[in-house]
Amino acid sequence: MKKIILKSVLLPKASGAVRADILVAGNRFEKVSTPLVPSDYDNAEIVDCSNFAIMPAFYNGHTHAAMSLLRGFADDMELYKWLSEYIWPTEAKLTPDDIAVGSRLAILEMIKSGTVFFADMYWHREQTMRVVEEMGIRAAIGVTFAEPLMTAEAWANNVEFLKNHTGESERVQLVVMPHAIYTVGEEKTAELIELAHAENYKIHTHLSETVLELKNCQEKFGCTPVEFWKRLGGLNSNFSAAHCTHFSASDRKIFAESGATAILNPCSNMKLNSGIPQIAEMLKDGIKLGLGTDGDSSNNNLDMQEEMKTIALLAKYLGTAETLPAEEALKMATCNVANFFGLKAGRIEEGFLADCLLIDLNNERMVPCYNVYSNWVYSANSGAIDSVMCNGNFVMRNRHVEGEDEILRDARECAKRLKS
Amino acid sequence: MKKIILKSVLLPKASGAVRADILVAGNRFEKVSTPLVPSDYDNAEIVDCSNFAIMPAFYNGHTHAAMSLLRGFADDMELYKWLSEYIWPTEAKLTPDDIAVGSRLAILEMIKSGTVFFADMYWHREQTMRVVEEMGIRAAIGVTFAEPLMTAEAWANNVEFLKNHTGESERVQLVVMPHAIYTVGEEKTAELIELAHAENYKIHTHLSETVLELKNCQEKFGCTPVEFWKRLGGLNSNFSAAHCTHFSASDRKIFAESGATAILNPCSNMKLNSGIPQIAEMLKDGIKLGLGTDGDSSNNNLDMQEEMKTIALLAKYLGTAETLPAEEALKMATCNVANFFGLKAGRIEEGFLADCLLIDLNNERMVPCYNVYSNWVYSANSGAIDSVMCNGNFVMRNRHVEGEDEILRDARECAKRLKS
Repeated sequence: MKKIILKSVLLPKASGAVRADILVAGNRFEKVSTPLVPSDYDNAEIVDCSNFAIMPAFYNGHTHAAMSLLRGFADDMELYKWLSEYIWPTEAKLTPDDIAVGSRLAILEMIKSGTVFFADMYWHREQTMRVVEEMGIRAAIGVTFAEPLMTAEAWANNVEFLKNHTGESERVQLVVMPHAIYTVGEEKTAELIELAHAENYKIHTHLSETVLELKNCQEKFGCTPVEFWKRLGGLNSNFSAAHCTHFSASDRKIFAESGATAILNPCSNMKLNSGIPQIAEMLKDGIKLGLGTDGDSSNNNLDMQEEMKTIALLAKYLGTAETLPAEEALKMATCNVANFFGLKAGRIEEGFLADCLLIDLNNERMVPCYNVYSNWVYSANSGAIDSVMCNGNFVMRNRHVEGEDEILRDARECAKRLKS
Repeated sequence: MKKIILKSVLLPKASGAVRADILVAGNRFEKVSTPLVPSDYDNAEIVDCSNFAIMPAFYNGHTHAAMSLLRGFADDMELYKWLSEYIWPTEAKLTPDDIAVGSRLAILEMIKSGTVFFADMYWHREQTMRVVEEMGIRAAIGVTFAEPLMTAEAWANNVEFLKNHTGESERVQLVVMPHAIYTVGEEKTAELIELAHAENYKIHTHLSETVLELKNCQEKFGCTPVEFWKRLGGLNSNFSAAHCTHFSASDRKIFAESGATAILNPCSNMKLNSGIPQIAEMLKDGIKLGLGTDGDSSNNNLDMQEEMKTIALLAKYLGTAETLPAEEALKMATCNVANFFGLKAGRIEEGFLADCLLIDLNNERMVPCYNVYSNWVYSANSGAIDSVMCNGNFVMRNRHVEGEDEILRDARECAKRLKS
């Protein structure tokens, strides 16, 4: 079994940071707070970490990876104009090969900013799954359903794909992803809930993103989006939803009691003028909370560190200066998302999956270092990440990711075609 | 005269980006859109910029540089507890040497994140001035006034310092900085306005930062902080104020008409639960707007790129998705601040001071590159900056700043003493 020893790494703890020698065996942390013995060093690769702090890697709870190809394609405009005049006509040009190119660019960006897992809602999922396997990270790949955009045959293919558990692996899981209440009706949603239950899949969807969605849901179904999902029996600990920007007090109570997880996307919500999540109230009501970046075309990056700082600041603005301390904000970007997707990950603890970041303590934003959590959440940016480990393997070392030049070249060529 | 040619750099324009050869002569851009002739190359250093876009450098309109030593010292707590139990007792330990150490750390952080100018409000200003000269950037150094914290002698010394224009230079200017309405009373404020007018200084102060400040101002002076400054005749185009978080509609009108500049600090305002600036309304009312980071102990960094993205997102949240497009947000972080401080800077144009950033187009966050402004404001972070030029000289190249190891070492030693 492959062994790596992270020697003399600064290990943050609630009580203060300590130096530790951490043993990674296979794809797990085998020893974190347990002293190593001489035999632990047999056949182990020893990595000098005296200049590094270790942090959990990020788990991105909501994105559309291949939309990286549309980063900056159109900005600063009203949502419907943006979608109908710019995004949809260009997306229509995307081939399966383009999806692979865009997924590679997205995963490169994720690794560089410390993300080792993403929940993806998009099309041509086989391409994205292939690239995830190839680049060494993890994903929950959505099998996406949207009635107006799919033929009956495509819908049936999706269902088959799920029934066969196609392509599931150590690092890739499938997730049932009805796009939203306004694209999948009551009957079809009920069918998907049943399918997810029968095949033991998680469900992930867009929920309560805009005021318009709320209004239309009320008109069509006579209830809020949260009530819609509750009524159909889909709201439980296997359910997570992106955005959740406009929950009523009653929605928050229902959602908290169900054990479902809300994946907040504050940067995208602000940029598209959707609103801001009521993070302070959600925390008070005990809703399980994670973070996601949304896609590159509406954020315009996949940087979970930035999303984490943003939600921490919004929480203090909406609550008090004491709301959502640094360590709690970090959990929203790490273990809270991992937990929902059934991964024993997102903490540097014995028995957890060996996913982590080595943070450069010689980065000026990490100095002085009274509190590593504070520096990581409020001061640093992703440029302070030296190395990224996923499943016991380094996917970035000394800020280098294998094949990055080719990935950028392919993305540029593809973008040139899309623009023309 | 020293000459540098930035060869084949990507020059963003409103109409799209073009490749250009830019001639820097002395401390100015001599040719930007004018084609070079053979004699321009005589004795010129030629820098291959085919992998770079050029952007204006950042001008930080409000900070407390040496507070870098207190980064992460205490977070996530109510303002008064934070100040009285943590910040003030520790600041009392700071020696003039510590201020030099802290200023060096702050300026290192600024250069790394693309800032070449800062307006500083702090103590032991001679130390900070010395470090600014030494490290090659620009500053507007505050001569800070706060009645409860100063002896009559210290106050008089400050006035003498200003009357003598002590230490002013090509890159350093002095600014009259009464700390705030709650620390400098009516009579003393009037005296400082007169002094600034007589000696041709700008004025900079904290204004309308918290609801408590508004309440106390109303009780003590029977007016809002903006009305207080107007009444004393201090509100004009030589006046700028940090924060401006709580302007009434009438305050906005008065402020806009006066020609004064509001320096917004959204990250600090959110983190300390002070509120958020009403950016959409301020834009509508035509107030001159710039950006600042506030100090490292309340932000917790000096990253103007982050501040720029944050204000752009808040503007869209508070206004519409069309409010404050990327290029306008960039101006708030660059030329708008430079303009207030009387610098012909913050634009890549002929005759402007040669301050600029070279942005790495091979950074994954700059790919694809449909719109350089969009990528720079919404997608990238300061890690995409390869080089920083100030006054015609490179202060960072290939992400290296001279003396950075020593700066970090000194800051760590100082922090150890402060913590003990």
